[in-house]
Amino acid sequence: MTGTLYGVGVGPGDPELMTLKAHRLIAAAKVIAYPAPDSGESFARAIAADAVPEGAIDIPMIVPMRVARFPAQDVYARAAETIAGHLDAGEDVVVLCEGDPFFYGSFMYLFARLAHRYATEIVPGVSSLGACSAALRRPLTARNDVLTVLPGPLSDDDMRARIEAAEAVAIMKVGRHLSRIRALLNAMGLTANAGYIERASGAEETVLPLADAPGTAPYFSMILIYKGDDPWLTP
Amino acid sequence: MTGTLYGVGVGPGDPELMTLKAHRLIAAAKVIAYPAPDSGESFARAIAADAVPEGAIDIPMIVPMRVARFPAQDVYARAAETIAGHLDAGEDVVVLCEGDPFFYGSFMYLFARLAHRYATEIVPGVSSLGACSAALRRPLTARNDVLTVLPGPLSDDDMRARIEAAEAVAIMKVGRHLSRIRALLNAMGLTANAGYIERASGAEETVLPLADAPGTAPYFSMILIYKGDDPWLTP
Repeated sequence: MTGTLYGVGVGPGDPELMTLKAHRLIAAAKVIAYPAPDSGESFARAIAADAVPEGAIDIPMIVPMRVARFPAQDVYARAAETIAGHLDAGEDVVVLCEGDPFFYGSFMYLFARLAHRYATEIVPGVSSLGACSAALRRPLTARNDVLTVLPGPLSDDDMRARIEAAEAVAIMKVGRHLSRIRALLNAMGLTANAGYIERASGAEETVLPLADAPGTAPYFSMILIYKGDDPWLTP
Repeated sequence: MTGTLYGVGVGPGDPELMTLKAHRLIAAAKVIAYPAPDSGESFARAIAADAVPEGAIDIPMIVPMRVARFPAQDVYARAAETIAGHLDAGEDVVVLCEGDPFFYGSFMYLFARLAHRYATEIVPGVSSLGACSAALRRPLTARNDVLTVLPGPLSDDDMRARIEAAEAVAIMKVGRHLSRIRALLNAMGLTANAGYIERASGAEETVLPLADAPGTAPYFSMILIYKGDDPWLTP
């Protein structure tokens, strides 16, 4: 009997936003794998830390945090073979995924290599979208809104066209694109409708009107835009 | 001291996809409120059932499931006053929300009426987006994809333009719009890229290629479209 591969969302940062299922699987894990930067700790591993049992085998997947980091395919290819070794030996492997495994997640690189060979289960998690709208204290979408989720690196022209076509917009992975995006939203007259959120739900959560956002942003930052007449639900 | 209002996401259907925080708050609740149909049980209440303590006071918000159900504002206005009574008496009130409170959720109607008067906390939950992509066993978004989330009632012309502008598309609240949307996606040559999901993560979950979807769909159904060259991650 080979083991089962679990892609487990650990949520956006607050360990209490893990699901009961994620907690159960992690607490029983003998082998865990997770993405990690080349210096500093793994965000996914840190979220799950209190649930990981003593003696669990760690498989960090170290992906250099360079600007152009896709594809980091050799990292995932090697990790997939290590994980396959444990699965072949009959051990389950729990892959810790920030947020949700299939929402801009690197788990897909393992899934693509292993899901046709081994029993695989995906456990969805709370994504940064939910955590950011909760932190901003504003609905992400209502009624029959169209929501568009954009990656920060998109060009100004692309971003403008897509923002124009939506009622609600989330811009992910803002990071070093912050000042450019802020200028674009200002030119579109949307600054007053936009909120800025860093590290939602974590101990270092920052929430600001976009106009007050800092000069530089970390990778885990988001801008939420709501175009309705009353985006802040003023009483 | 007045009580605190909690808007708590209970996730997409599987009770084990509640967060640890949702479970803790519900298990300690003395007063719970939730949307309910005019016949049959409340979906949010059913998800949380095993966590609700004996003796908790129930405040069902009965919203008739008619086609044109917005605004059901008088239902929420009355519920807000009932909830305010408990908050004024110093009792916390936990509002159970399907999926995530701020992702197409009715919690916003309570939030708009009460958050300026009482301490209010939003607890994000696993949304149907994550649950549906997990059920379909396909990433919702990868790398720098643009994701667009569309409500099923959108007109064909609007829907077509917005699908054309995205790499990944989720169509929510498919329900009675299924055959029309299916015809549109067929005309756009996207049927092979589309999956159909009903009641994701629940006991009655149904997952099918769109081509095999049934003739009619329940309200809690979704179509996911991925336009990449290899939407199914063929090994």
